[in-house]
Amino acid sequence: MADIIQPVKGTRDFYPEDKAVITWLYEKMGEVSERFGYQEFDGPFLEYIDLYAAKSGEELVKEQSFVFEDKSGNLLALRPELTPTLVRMIAQRQQHLYYPLRWWSFGPFWRYESPQKGRGREFFQWNVDLIGADSPEADAELAAVMAAFFQEIGLAPAQTRILINNRRLMDRELAKLEIPPHERNDIFHLIDKRDKMEFPEWEAYAEELGLSLSQMDGLQALLENDQLWEESEELVRFFKAVDALGASEYVEFAPYIIRGLDYYTGTVFEAQALTADVSRAIAGGGRYDDLLSDVGGDPLPGVGFAAGDMVLIVVLEELGLLPEKRDQTPAPVIVTVFDEDTRMASFSLAAELRRAGLKVNCYPEVEKLGKQFRHANRIGSRVATILGPEELAEGMVAVKDLRERDQVQVPRDEAAEYIQGLLEKDLSA
Amino acid sequence: MADIIQPVKGTRDFYPEDKAVITWLYEKMGEVSERFGYQEFDGPFLEYIDLYAAKSGEELVKEQSFVFEDKSGNLLALRPELTPTLVRMIAQRQQHLYYPLRWWSFGPFWRYESPQKGRGREFFQWNVDLIGADSPEADAELAAVMAAFFQEIGLAPAQTRILINNRRLMDRELAKLEIPPHERNDIFHLIDKRDKMEFPEWEAYAEELGLSLSQMDGLQALLENDQLWEESEELVRFFKAVDALGASEYVEFAPYIIRGLDYYTGTVFEAQALTADVSRAIAGGGRYDDLLSDVGGDPLPGVGFAAGDMVLIVVLEELGLLPEKRDQTPAPVIVTVFDEDTRMASFSLAAELRRAGLKVNCYPEVEKLGKQFRHANRIGSRVATILGPEELAEGMVAVKDLRERDQVQVPRDEAAEYIQGLLEKDLSA
Repeated sequence: MADIIQPVKGTRDFYPEDKAVITWLYEKMGEVSERFGYQEFDGPFLEYIDLYAAKSGEELVKEQSFVFEDKSGNLLALRPELTPTLVRMIAQRQQHLYYPLRWWSFGPFWRYESPQKGRGREFFQWNVDLIGADSPEADAELAAVMAAFFQEIGLAPAQTRILINNRRLMDRELAKLEIPPHERNDIFHLIDKRDKMEFPEWEAYAEELGLSLSQMDGLQALLENDQLWEESEELVRFFKAVDALGASEYVEFAPYIIRGLDYYTGTVFEAQALTADVSRAIAGGGRYDDLLSDVGGDPLPGVGFAAGDMVLIVVLEELGLLPEKRDQTPAPVIVTVFDEDTRMASFSLAAELRRAGLKVNCYPEVEKLGKQFRHANRIGSRVATILGPEELAEGMVAVKDLRERDQVQVPRDEAAEYIQGLLEKDLSA
Repeated sequence: MADIIQPVKGTRDFYPEDKAVITWLYEKMGEVSERFGYQEFDGPFLEYIDLYAAKSGEELVKEQSFVFEDKSGNLLALRPELTPTLVRMIAQRQQHLYYPLRWWSFGPFWRYESPQKGRGREFFQWNVDLIGADSPEADAELAAVMAAFFQEIGLAPAQTRILINNRRLMDRELAKLEIPPHERNDIFHLIDKRDKMEFPEWEAYAEELGLSLSQMDGLQALLENDQLWEESEELVRFFKAVDALGASEYVEFAPYIIRGLDYYTGTVFEAQALTADVSRAIAGGGRYDDLLSDVGGDPLPGVGFAAGDMVLIVVLEELGLLPEKRDQTPAPVIVTVFDEDTRMASFSLAAELRRAGLKVNCYPEVEKLGKQFRHANRIGSRVATILGPEELAEGMVAVKDLRERDQVQVPRDEAAEYIQGLLEKDLSA
């Protein structure tokens, strides 16, 4: 087996039990998005690198993106995030869309990072965006969507928290510390790195950026000031709206949250797991009021967030919250093949049962019945049918209950209904 | 608007009405796959180019794939097809999986081709594979899955046809024409190109491959021989099984179908639209009995097919078969905001209605009611609620039927039920 070609580092193979988790997440994300009236959309997976160059931030574009030249010499990127695509699509049809516009999406993204627990180079992301409204109440709706999703998948407020800050507030506070406007973006990066570095390393980074000792003290006091939100009218309104939307249990102020992307202008979000052993955020987002004009559209405010699948799966696995669907059988019913002579009759029976809405495997080879039953047990089938020459002659089908291990003869035209009854009994039990 | 960065050539933007079509196809493909007991899986979107180099065929790998170097100098490809990934994944766990194994998938693929109607560089594909059975009856099951899908989406047998041939049969026929074994793969390519070239061009290609005039006559007679299948025991059994599975209306023999991929060993399929103005196949597939050992696994037979989304959408659009879901409103219910004072009460009402299972937009700004109603009409909402100071004082909600243009006051705690009643009346009408 040494010669099997390896998968690419940082990518994942989705065997059925793994894919069932992704599909479940996609369904739950869709349900919650639609409950708030969001519409599903998607962009291409390839974009010109220029789309990200403007505003996503140097780290994401230069270091973390898969970039390559196409045959015409254009630089393409495998999308590392969705927001630039979203604003490009809106700018293209800006006069023909209705605002406020609410869109959600679930699809693949790529980042060239070192793979580790909860982080890969190819991952899925849920994106939710509200365009054309600039109120703190619009920000609050996004926090409520996030909270509703956590509730939907069984993550309690004790297990996860949506942390909130506001860049305009922080900008004013940095001004008070006499940090000049053109240096504040660097300080945002410094704040963003606080949880990602050891303290001495972080302190050295601050010194490198030219912070004085008193500025450093001021910054640290700022990052520990839990009451700072009261000085932001935006955040006061935000928290009031979160409360009205019934999401306050999940949401709290955190002055050290700033997010890494350069394009955020106002309130920023980051969801963190409180119990799990992963250092990355579950979800992140914020308000971006300048992005439409940055890509060439007319000015239009926006707010949104993204949640990747990988950290979420680590957290849910740790808490035992992954869905039971993983273990579901692909075929509750298996139609066995008795012998060569009756094989086509079994195929017809399988077609009849499928037409009645059942999920049916038909054994594609003539094998000993024992082998066919073993297969049925392995894949978790609940019922097997047997159609031998006697049954055929009498217009009957033998239906074997694979769990109770008993077998009955039923008229062929009642077989579907009988089997449906057996399966429904399970569901109601 | 001249400055908006363009999307990459051959990619698509999926606005909500476009994405609804993709989601509908995905759902229908899933339903049909699962009716036959197939399990959903997926592979990575990036693979090492070596995985395809072996057997996918030179054209696909060298000319039609997006290939690039990663930072370690490895050559990666954006997957142009799924089968090599599937067999890699099976080879990796070959002793731990249960056979016959039935897997399906739906995801993105990339090919560097000239974009035209029904063809892009980034597209979705449905893949269905049955591994570990080498009978013609297993091949027939795949044809039946394909036929069931066509039926499910409303494509009648008069509108589409699954064409069948067998490479072993053709190999024997080419032997009769005294074409030596090592030249037969070239002749398969020639056959595959028959529908894709003008006749003189095709004839010149045949001459270039060294076919004599009598071989050329023989080949042409072969490609018109509708009864040739009777000489293949495999195909005789195949058609019998297709019949038993209730799919024969969709399936017919076509000696000129060979498919482009090098790894097919036996029966091959190609679904074509009979009415639509597109020259590409809707779906294609076949039996590949050597592929597992080619990637380093133990020998294991397989059969499968793929159907791309782009040709299918062109065909369905032409026939008026695209789903109504495209026009569905994202939010049947809109909760308006009367004024600043009652705004939080409206947010709470929205949360209550969502908890009751309704899909609800809440207007995120304080705007004139007329503007909010216009928005509701534009996005197709059915019902609007109004919660002014009077309603609030009386514990009531005004519910406006946006179609009938009448309005009633209902107690707030009965609002969800009342609205649900209105929406259900629509559904049953």
